[in-house]
Amino acid sequence: MLKAPNISTFIACDRPFAQSRLVLFGAPFDSTTSFRPGTRFGPNAIRQESFGIETYSPYQDMDLEDCAVCDVGDLELPFGNGARALEMISEQSRFILETGKKQLMLGGEHLITLGAFREALRIWPELCLIHFDAHTDLREHYLGEALSHASVIRRCWEGAGDGRIFSFGIRSGTRAEWRWAEQHIRLCPYDAAGFAAALQQIGARPIYLSLDLDVLDPAECPGTGTQEAGGLRFGELMSCIARLPGRQVVAADLCELNPSLDPSGRSTALAIKLCREIALSMLK
Amino acid sequence: MLKAPNISTFIACDRPFAQSRLVLFGAPFDSTTSFRPGTRFGPNAIRQESFGIETYSPYQDMDLEDCAVCDVGDLELPFGNGARALEMISEQSRFILETGKKQLMLGGEHLITLGAFREALRIWPELCLIHFDAHTDLREHYLGEALSHASVIRRCWEGAGDGRIFSFGIRSGTRAEWRWAEQHIRLCPYDAAGFAAALQQIGARPIYLSLDLDVLDPAECPGTGTQEAGGLRFGELMSCIARLPGRQVVAADLCELNPSLDPSGRSTALAIKLCREIALSMLK
Amino acid sequence: MLKAPNISTFIACDRPFAQSRLVLFGAPFDSTTSFRPGTRFGPNAIRQESFGIETYSPYQDMDLEDCAVCDVGDLELPFGNGARALEMISEQSRFILETGKKQLMLGGEHLITLGAFREALRIWPELCLIHFDAHTDLREHYLGEALSHASVIRRCWEGAGDGRIFSFGIRSGTRAEWRWAEQHIRLCPYDAAGFAAALQQIGARPIYLSLDLDVLDPAECPGTGTQEAGGLRFGELMSCIARLPGRQVVAADLCELNPSLDPSGRSTALAIKLCREIALSMLK
Amino acid sequence: MLKAPNISTFIACDRPFAQSRLVLFGAPFDSTTSFRPGTRFGPNAIRQESFGIETYSPYQDMDLEDCAVCDVGDLELPFGNGARALEMISEQSRFILETGKKQLMLGGEHLITLGAFREALRIWPELCLIHFDAHTDLREHYLGEALSHASVIRRCWEGAGDGRIFSFGIRSGTRAEWRWAEQHIRLCPYDAAGFAAALQQIGARPIYLSLDLDVLDPAECPGTGTQEAGGLRFGELMSCIARLPGRQVVAADLCELNPSLDPSGRSTALAIKLCREIALSMLK
Amino acid sequence: MLKAPNISTFIACDRPFAQSRLVLFGAPFDSTTSFRPGTRFGPNAIRQESFGIETYSPYQDMDLEDCAVCDVGDLELPFGNGARALEMISEQSRFILETGKKQLMLGGEHLITLGAFREALRIWPELCLIHFDAHTDLREHYLGEALSHASVIRRCWEGAGDGRIFSFGIRSGTRAEWRWAEQHIRLCPYDAAGFAAALQQIGARPIYLSLDLDVLDPAECPGTGTQEAGGLRFGELMSCIARLPGRQVVAADLCELNPSLDPSGRSTALAIKLCREIALSMLK
Amino acid sequence: MLKAPNISTFIACDRPFAQSRLVLFGAPFDSTTSFRPGTRFGPNAIRQESFGIETYSPYQDMDLEDCAVCDVGDLELPFGNGARALEMISEQSRFILETGKKQLMLGGEHLITLGAFREALRIWPELCLIHFDAHTDLREHYLGEALSHASVIRRCWEGAGDGRIFSFGIRSGTRAEWRWAEQHIRLCPYDAAGFAAALQQIGARPIYLSLDLDVLDPAECPGTGTQEAGGLRFGELMSCIARLPGRQVVAADLCELNPSLDPSGRSTALAIKLCREIALSMLK
Repeated sequence: MLKAPNISTFIACDRPFAQSRLVLFGAPFDSTTSFRPGTRFGPNAIRQESFGIETYSPYQDMDLEDCAVCDVGDLELPFGNGARALEMISEQSRFILETGKKQLMLGGEHLITLGAFREALRIWPELCLIHFDAHTDLREHYLGEALSHASVIRRCWEGAGDGRIFSFGIRSGTRAEWRWAEQHIRLCPYDAAGFAAALQQIGARPIYLSLDLDVLDPAECPGTGTQEAGGLRFGELMSCIARLPGRQVVAADLCELNPSLDPSGRSTALAIKLCREIALSMLK
Repeated sequence: MLKAPNISTFIACDRPFAQSRLVLFGAPFDSTTSFRPGTRFGPNAIRQESFGIETYSPYQDMDLEDCAVCDVGDLELPFGNGARALEMISEQSRFILETGKKQLMLGGEHLITLGAFREALRIWPELCLIHFDAHTDLREHYLGEALSHASVIRRCWEGAGDGRIFSFGIRSGTRAEWRWAEQHIRLCPYDAAGFAAALQQIGARPIYLSLDLDVLDPAECPGTGTQEAGGLRFGELMSCIARLPGRQVVAADLCELNPSLDPSGRSTALAIKLCREIALSMLK
Repeated sequence: MLKAPNISTFIACDRPFAQSRLVLFGAPFDSTTSFRPGTRFGPNAIRQESFGIETYSPYQDMDLEDCAVCDVGDLELPFGNGARALEMISEQSRFILETGKKQLMLGGEHLITLGAFREALRIWPELCLIHFDAHTDLREHYLGEALSHASVIRRCWEGAGDGRIFSFGIRSGTRAEWRWAEQHIRLCPYDAAGFAAALQQIGARPIYLSLDLDVLDPAECPGTGTQEAGGLRFGELMSCIARLPGRQVVAADLCELNPSLDPSGRSTALAIKLCREIALSMLK
Repeated sequence: MLKAPNISTFIACDRPFAQSRLVLFGAPFDSTTSFRPGTRFGPNAIRQESFGIETYSPYQDMDLEDCAVCDVGDLELPFGNGARALEMISEQSRFILETGKKQLMLGGEHLITLGAFREALRIWPELCLIHFDAHTDLREHYLGEALSHASVIRRCWEGAGDGRIFSFGIRSGTRAEWRWAEQHIRLCPYDAAGFAAALQQIGARPIYLSLDLDVLDPAECPGTGTQEAGGLRFGELMSCIARLPGRQVVAADLCELNPSLDPSGRSTALAIKLCREIALSMLK
Repeated sequence: MLKAPNISTFIACDRPFAQSRLVLFGAPFDSTTSFRPGTRFGPNAIRQESFGIETYSPYQDMDLEDCAVCDVGDLELPFGNGARALEMISEQSRFILETGKKQLMLGGEHLITLGAFREALRIWPELCLIHFDAHTDLREHYLGEALSHASVIRRCWEGAGDGRIFSFGIRSGTRAEWRWAEQHIRLCPYDAAGFAAALQQIGARPIYLSLDLDVLDPAECPGTGTQEAGGLRFGELMSCIARLPGRQVVAADLCELNPSLDPSGRSTALAIKLCREIALSMLK
Repeated sequence: MLKAPNISTFIACDRPFAQSRLVLFGAPFDSTTSFRPGTRFGPNAIRQESFGIETYSPYQDMDLEDCAVCDVGDLELPFGNGARALEMISEQSRFILETGKKQLMLGGEHLITLGAFREALRIWPELCLIHFDAHTDLREHYLGEALSHASVIRRCWEGAGDGRIFSFGIRSGTRAEWRWAEQHIRLCPYDAAGFAAALQQIGARPIYLSLDLDVLDPAECPGTGTQEAGGLRFGELMSCIARLPGRQVVAADLCELNPSLDPSGRSTALAIKLCREIALSMLK
């Protein structure tokens, strides 16, 4: 019989878990989204459309097919219960990271970063966070909730402390958040000009890379819920990724893709290309 | 100066609260939506587009401009916290209903019904529920949560007890829900054939009317998250509404409009027309 | 060379003008549209997509290819100048009708009917108007303008007088319009139940047929600017058209298609099918 | 690890092949589509969205979870090579049908029916074809090609011969096709009024059921490439399916879903519900 | 009662008129639009979505909440009557500007600029016009009409005379317009390279700032009716705005947003951000 | 009669064939498209929307109305038969090119280039190919087919041989394609930096220019089927076109526009502008 096996993974990420160096999974959660929800459909869109790109990257001269990557599918997260969703993400991350593998998580809204970051921080207490975003995400609370996409970096800071978080491309926040950021994190507004310097500061310490797609200019990636003009161009982001090989990026995530806001599908295609490049950079 | 006053209400519902017989408000909450979220945008779409219809109803030969209706705007409900949202809806309902006014709530997802129904039940212990829906909504729990759009009628039943709930148009549910329904509620599958008989059974008892727009066939109203073919036609629903004048409908809601799923805008236009007709029928 | 001639007409309507019995033209005007504009794109959409249907009608067992029909393209009407646009439509209609041909005009907003109707009335003083619409269109003025889509039938009445206008499917209007209609026109609300009786009343007098697509239920034709639930089904409208052969329909129009509101394209496909059927019925 | 297994099947159709009574597979082919392509995305959309319905059917009081159904995924068919695609479909059908199982194929354009039908005809020489469609699909050739969606039923007839094909809901075709049909097949125009009589004529002979979704009125199912107003309502189609249990339906297909034409998603939801009902009716 | 006050203004622009230094209002007029209409929905979209941005600008380190701004809503302009619409805009502008306040008008099509500019010119005879646009808008007439979006700058010139108009980003026009421009205005094609020099030329004279959003590259702002590739990037425009504080900008407008052409909503989000920045720059 | 002649050409390209120096035609073929089909609608969209731009180019200070260009419409190509479609394109090209005219072909998918290029190569054996694309298109076969959009440049190379093909903007391909390209063609990855040098190498030899719109960054042109981030900006492409006058460009094509993927219409507007600029550059 000419059957297809019904298994869908990110393109070429079909190695057995035990043999993989990098594990990919989805966290389709968007319950605290305050504006236009729909990032829950991000991981599936990325996986389904991924056959539209090549596995070979001319940028890094590497082929995903030569790498040991495993896509274990999406977590089934409870809608409307952020605390429980974060526990499930932490549990998943613990299993992956404690077996010595790296991980790449696909969102979902930005809150999911907290579940993975706090678990990675437990394993690597020296962990630094590289954070690409249009928004500060540093609120103490948002609409009365401590666990919110708008406060996720503040929550990460509560674990990591001062000087360990490096934010790039930021161009929106309350005045209070901007003032607070000056005291506690390294915030590079509007672009990624300080990226090389940040990597030097981080040195050999392990890195968690969190990429909120809205760091890109909406012209590059319209398919995200809260677009802020004036962001990074694709080339600027690729230049940053090109500096990662050789660094100890132990875990990463890519979040806030909302495919329903972009009928052309190019935001999903862009996210897929970034997934390939980030995965390859972590394995180089 | 030629200024517009920046006030937007449902068309012609601009009476002072104190002089109103019917109060309209929005409950833009959709955090437990399991499939495609977006009903949070329902109340605003209904209000904004309402100037596209006439205030006069040839069906009932009444004009909304002659009636004393007040639109008090939307509640600001916390995303991701269903219990708190229900409390706020209950509080709002208490204020309105205890002053002797009727209310019409615009959703939002179907869970919001619970907040208003339980408050009305406290005031009128004999209250019956007329429920239009494609889905049973009778689950004990859904994805581990007791407060869910998929269990809202079960929660209402816990307050009201057997024989007080009349469901019409139902055509989807688990086998367990269908079996349970046979024991505890009056479920009219597929259509509203038993509507007149139900009204007779209810007699002079007060009524809460809950209208989930997906009771309509998706051909009539595509702008809802979980469409089920084989539903009511607009005319059937209008025939039911035509039987309401003279009955004691003390509170009502209209929910599950998701405007982003219908780019033609006709689902919103339909919801607006139903709002006008329901409001008029409650005041006749 | 394998060249296409760059000529686009409604399918099979490519006879020379002199040899034609029926002339088709477009009137892409929508400047008085008060809600969502875009009917200016109607005639072109109808023409472009018309190759998607067959020229043969099983309903009437006739083939458009056997008929002498000529599509002379769209008028170039001035945006924002209703009076001048109506003059141009009148001039065009005079030329066609005075040569003894019938005409079928594609809108555009409903105001265009006035230009053609008043010219036909000049030629046939006994002319009756058969009017399918969701809205009364009987306002004295609309937003201060006498020439408006919302007052077009009132303007036609000023020429024709009492008892000559037969409206079907009406379900929206101000109370004043409904009251006025009772005195001056034959208004059949909600459906076309009185159609056969109306034809009998009209007898051998010449007929102008004006079809505002919003007479159809929005479920049948969502691609129109001001949708009103509770309208005619396609079959009901086809039953009326089936009664036209043998009657003296001298001119007709089909208006208010707004293709941009229906991404599925089915409203345009429906309008095309109605064009074919109306044209055939006028030639039978 | 909280992993999802990355396997996606039509909801509850996850039995091992060997234990299944019914096998479901997709044939995502649309190369001969003459108007708006995109049915290649049909099978995947059906599978992905199928978790949005219940496995229990109140219509038949059966649950898909209690049935032995296996979804073996999509064939990988070569774009632009109809003959080879049909061979692959035939090969797949042979494997399934010769092991004594029934099959349900998801399209894709209507041409795919030929691959499955001719194979079933080889096994059951008495096979009859029940065909729901808006279009005759009886052309000798279409744009010079013998293998086309517009000639698929003519090709099936070449195998089966006169009096074995029963077409319902037909409302479009050339005059030549309509004339030819009168001689060779049983064509029920516009509706399914003759369905019960057809089943009686067929008696105990094996049946191939081919459902082109455009048989439904576009109001019911806009997501198909060549919409024809005036089609079946969902209830009429369900009444026909309700008559199938007890008949020997050995193979079936459902084709011409084009999800990209219906942004509301309701056409896909409808197709999913029909899949469930057809599958259950074949197993009852 | 937990009521919302039903008042919707641009975010944080809710001061009483008397206490405001800047007044914002909408002019939803698009009757002379020759291609795709819909800018009438611009002001409402800007207002409704404005809660999606922060009131704080990191670019200018100012917060809109600290400023005295009043949004007085939309004018109700007559569709199809450009002359009357311009009179109403002039009247509104007179009231605002004569009380010593500044104004920011939201379009609507570009023709609206004329109503405000000519009134401001009456008050400040030395007024200069800074004009961002893709198109020259310098036609003597357009489709026979003197009052058209395509001739608005020509009309402004008739009031102001030579050397007072500075156009930036222009990349489309007839040959005659380009030749005329060389004689009468300062036209900077393709970009805003000459902006600083222009400000120097203007010196202390009062300025009217007119921003047609299509000056931006369509990659930045697709939601406008007549897109011209090769325009300004967001950063270039922001650099110009950054030079405005200290200059005497007495009135401004932002026009040609057509929200229905951009389903992602990012064009509206961009327009909102520009509103905030322009408003702040006028108050700094 | 005020009739429009029903003839639609690309704006101002209405000269008689015999008097034309440049001939424009469409090749609406997309049968080998592997991902999202729809480029068949490209030529019609370009023609229909072309009245939205000016005929005058400020970039080249030329007006299309002063040039002798003829648009002969679209070829009627057989769906699903690539070999025959290519023959028809070759035949058309032979007729045009042998009469000494230049040609500009509008796609359709990229495979169409082969039909025109091989014919031009027969006439000018020294012909060079300038190729703008995101993808290498150098596969030996694709999904078993030699005639595919993914192998079109490989097929062109089989005719022209080494060193005659110059590819710009390439950023996607298999590793094997990249390795092969190094040996046989001049491939300029990511941008058009080497364009001037390439023109120098080509010298006075005749040139075929093939422009796959996906060479542009998806931010510039989202309306294409397989978007690849990181492409050329519009300005870069215009700089290349600006170098063409004086070179012997004998034939050109512009392909892969898929209008249905870009609801804003700006990709079509961009393609139209490029058509105007390429046509003018060939005639300068």
